[in-house]
Amino acid sequence: MNPKQLVGEKATEHIKEGMIVGLGTGSTAYFAIMKIGEMVKNGLNIKGVPTSKATEELALSLNIPLLNISEVKKIDVTIDGADEYDSHKNLIKGGGGALLREKIIASITRFYVIIADKAKGCDILGDFAVPVEITPFAKEITINQLKALGCEPKFREKDGKLFITDNQNYITDCKFKEIKNPKELEAKMNAIPGVVENGLFVGMANLIISEDGEGGILQID
Amino acid sequence: MNPKQLVGEKATEHIKEGMIVGLGTGSTAYFAIMKIGEMVKNGLNIKGVPTSKATEELALSLNIPLLNISEVKKIDVTIDGADEYDSHKNLIKGGGGALLREKIIASITRFYVIIADKAKGCDILGDFAVPVEITPFAKEITINQLKALGCEPKFREKDGKLFITDNQNYITDCKFKEIKNPKELEAKMNAIPGVVENGLFVGMANLIISEDGEGGILQID
Repeated sequence: MNPKQLVGEKATEHIKEGMIVGLGTGSTAYFAIMKIGEMVKNGLNIKGVPTSKATEELALSLNIPLLNISEVKKIDVTIDGADEYDSHKNLIKGGGGALLREKIIASITRFYVIIADKAKGCDILGDFAVPVEITPFAKEITINQLKALGCEPKFREKDGKLFITDNQNYITDCKFKEIKNPKELEAKMNAIPGVVENGLFVGMANLIISEDGEGGILQID
Repeated sequence: MNPKQLVGEKATEHIKEGMIVGLGTGSTAYFAIMKIGEMVKNGLNIKGVPTSKATEELALSLNIPLLNISEVKKIDVTIDGADEYDSHKNLIKGGGGALLREKIIASITRFYVIIADKAKGCDILGDFAVPVEITPFAKEITINQLKALGCEPKFREKDGKLFITDNQNYITDCKFKEIKNPKELEAKMNAIPGVVENGLFVGMANLIISEDGEGGILQID
């Protein structure tokens, strides 16, 4: 079995009858959602909350009942990918640009399962640039304040223009050398007035599922 | 002399030749700006950075040279008002709805002077509701997460509709009983994904100028 399918399907073991389930985005989450579609077809009664438009469309095509985020107070289980993770289950997310939505969903999730290639695991976060969503107003000041934290920020672009998030903000990808204290860095970034949210997810993941490159499952819990 | 004029003019003593000056908003800041206009007319060479459209118009009418926020890295002195302040110089600001702009300007200011009625002083912050700017997406979740911090949030309205900030977000005014640890509360609010910024200004003010009700000046530095 494809390793992405292996970990994606493994994660669905945490889904039980009657749960509200956060549905992640990306190539590994795809396999989890396909499996959930099969489980729903076989009679499982759950409701999904998609983390992106693409996931919403996939879930609808599989007849997975969905809830709007405005109707949801708590999510029982969310299964989503990550761009990088360490052995303390700290994550970098937001490579796809939807970090605010992903972090809101993570913040109300009781059991947050990350599924990812083994290659995304690391000892110390920092190979992947941290995506930071910032307000257009005074963006030059915000960039300077991010630089002062020790990174090289780079505005994300799309089709030669600045990338605009769903919330009408910009994303700057902040490349650090090594993120030795993700919790502290997350708080420092959030304390910058022009920062809306950042892609460091600290203390949110309850379980990380990856594979060992030989068809076996690796879990960090 | 009108007490607001007394403290507004007192604050301008901190402005020196060649400085970049943040220009606050409100009925007390008005008198500071009027005085700065007079100083400029008498030959003082400074550049202003307005905290609001109204202040920009007032400053232009007085021929105070202005800089756009995108041209500024540091501000030497900012003179602005506050909705509430305590003896540790912690503030609640943003009653006017421009807290993000005000906080960005405060964050790059070397010497931040607050001018305010004595009535706005208190032992423990909390009489005034803390304005919090939140993203429209998943606002119900953000409200629940703010409530969990011990406040009663209330959406700010204007003309019967939700008030929209310059950054296309909402404001919710969060009434706490007593804010015993403003620094901790500020960090907790900023850690909520849907919170863009909040109106607690902790460790930012260098000097608070008010009056004693009998024509004398009171300062906290």
